[in-house]
Amino acid sequence: MADELTLHEDPRSGNCYKIKLTAALLGLPLATRQYDIMQGETRTPEFLARVNPNGRIPVLQIGEGEQARFLPESNAACWYLGAGTDLVPQDRFGQADMLRWMFFEQYSHEPNVATLRFWLRFVGEANLSNEQRAQIMAKRVAGCAALELMDGHLAGREFLCGERVTLADIALFPYTHVAEEGGFGLDDYANIRGWIARIGKLPGFTPME
Amino acid sequence: MADELTLHEDPRSGNCYKIKLTAALLGLPLATRQYDIMQGETRTPEFLARVNPNGRIPVLQIGEGEQARFLPESNAACWYLGAGTDLVPQDRFGQADMLRWMFFEQYSHEPNVATLRFWLRFVGEANLSNEQRAQIMAKRVAGCAALELMDGHLAGREFLCGERVTLADIALFPYTHVAEEGGFGLDDYANIRGWIARIGKLPGFTPME
Repeated sequence: MADELTLHEDPRSGNCYKIKLTAALLGLPLATRQYDIMQGETRTPEFLARVNPNGRIPVLQIGEGEQARFLPESNAACWYLGAGTDLVPQDRFGQADMLRWMFFEQYSHEPNVATLRFWLRFVGEANLSNEQRAQIMAKRVAGCAALELMDGHLAGREFLCGERVTLADIALFPYTHVAEEGGFGLDDYANIRGWIARIGKLPGFTPME
Repeated sequence: MADELTLHEDPRSGNCYKIKLTAALLGLPLATRQYDIMQGETRTPEFLARVNPNGRIPVLQIGEGEQARFLPESNAACWYLGAGTDLVPQDRFGQADMLRWMFFEQYSHEPNVATLRFWLRFVGEANLSNEQRAQIMAKRVAGCAALELMDGHLAGREFLCGERVTLADIALFPYTHVAEEGGFGLDDYANIRGWIARIGKLPGFTPME
């Protein structure tokens, strides 16, 4: 990997941690540049023009200067780092099955499990809008359903796609292992707890800051 | 492609149409089995046990009988069909950049542009819950932002990833081209309108039912 890698990130974000965990498991050097999303630092004109027009982090920057390329979307950045390594299956069905969990993460897990953590731990319940407060119950139910689905799937499996860790595990680990910060207890999900412990013991594992 | 392919679908769903469009552009035969999501037909015990524990369509079934494998998540199914064809770039950055748009679709586009279409066209505004009604304005704003981002990116580009159509275009086409059914006018998005027209002229193109 010749190009220098820089992660534009907020260390509190599990989406950013995915990319750092992928790089750590692969032993890849990764520079970071930090932004405070609570202060709107990813919505500045310069950020929108150069780094990500969607105003979000993480963004993986590949290379420097005028040749730099920018990759938004955490799971796409993980693909860039992991493609061709043991973290991505080589066969077409295996790749699609791994991506299935990564899309599940972005559609069914993150908007519920991560959003409630963000609202309750970082924004504070007292500071939520009425519209946000009206969604808490639905996000609680949907987040529990996502965790329940993972727990059932992990019965008898070491990792989400079978015996080996893949990007599917890396995508779902960050917000799952801090789900309690959003009020989701993991006591009922023994398979998830075992899976969290296995990921924590992987060679090269780095914890979330 | 030796295994028989069957799509478990609801024809009104743009997520299902993605897979049919991918198969059509590739000239792959694809059987369908239809469900009415409004009648809860994807929440039956048999569906949850055999097809998808997440209770959602589309699901791509590969093979028949006891050997059948099931692939939920529309964009993962598109990957399965498209991997190794001209619809997926061969280089690692190109693949990641394509996936970037597919994750954007599931996180920033579908929950806004498609959900408002579902609520307003199929459920009916009078039948929405108070919690759903409270989200309309935020989804309108976020959906417009997603369309605006696409329109800006398509300036000077034939397709989202450059000169050639990829799964990124197939993922974003279905709900974008019927965005008006959710109250999103496309008049201000000339680049999107040109892109829609180009996709409609691709060899093998099949329209949404």
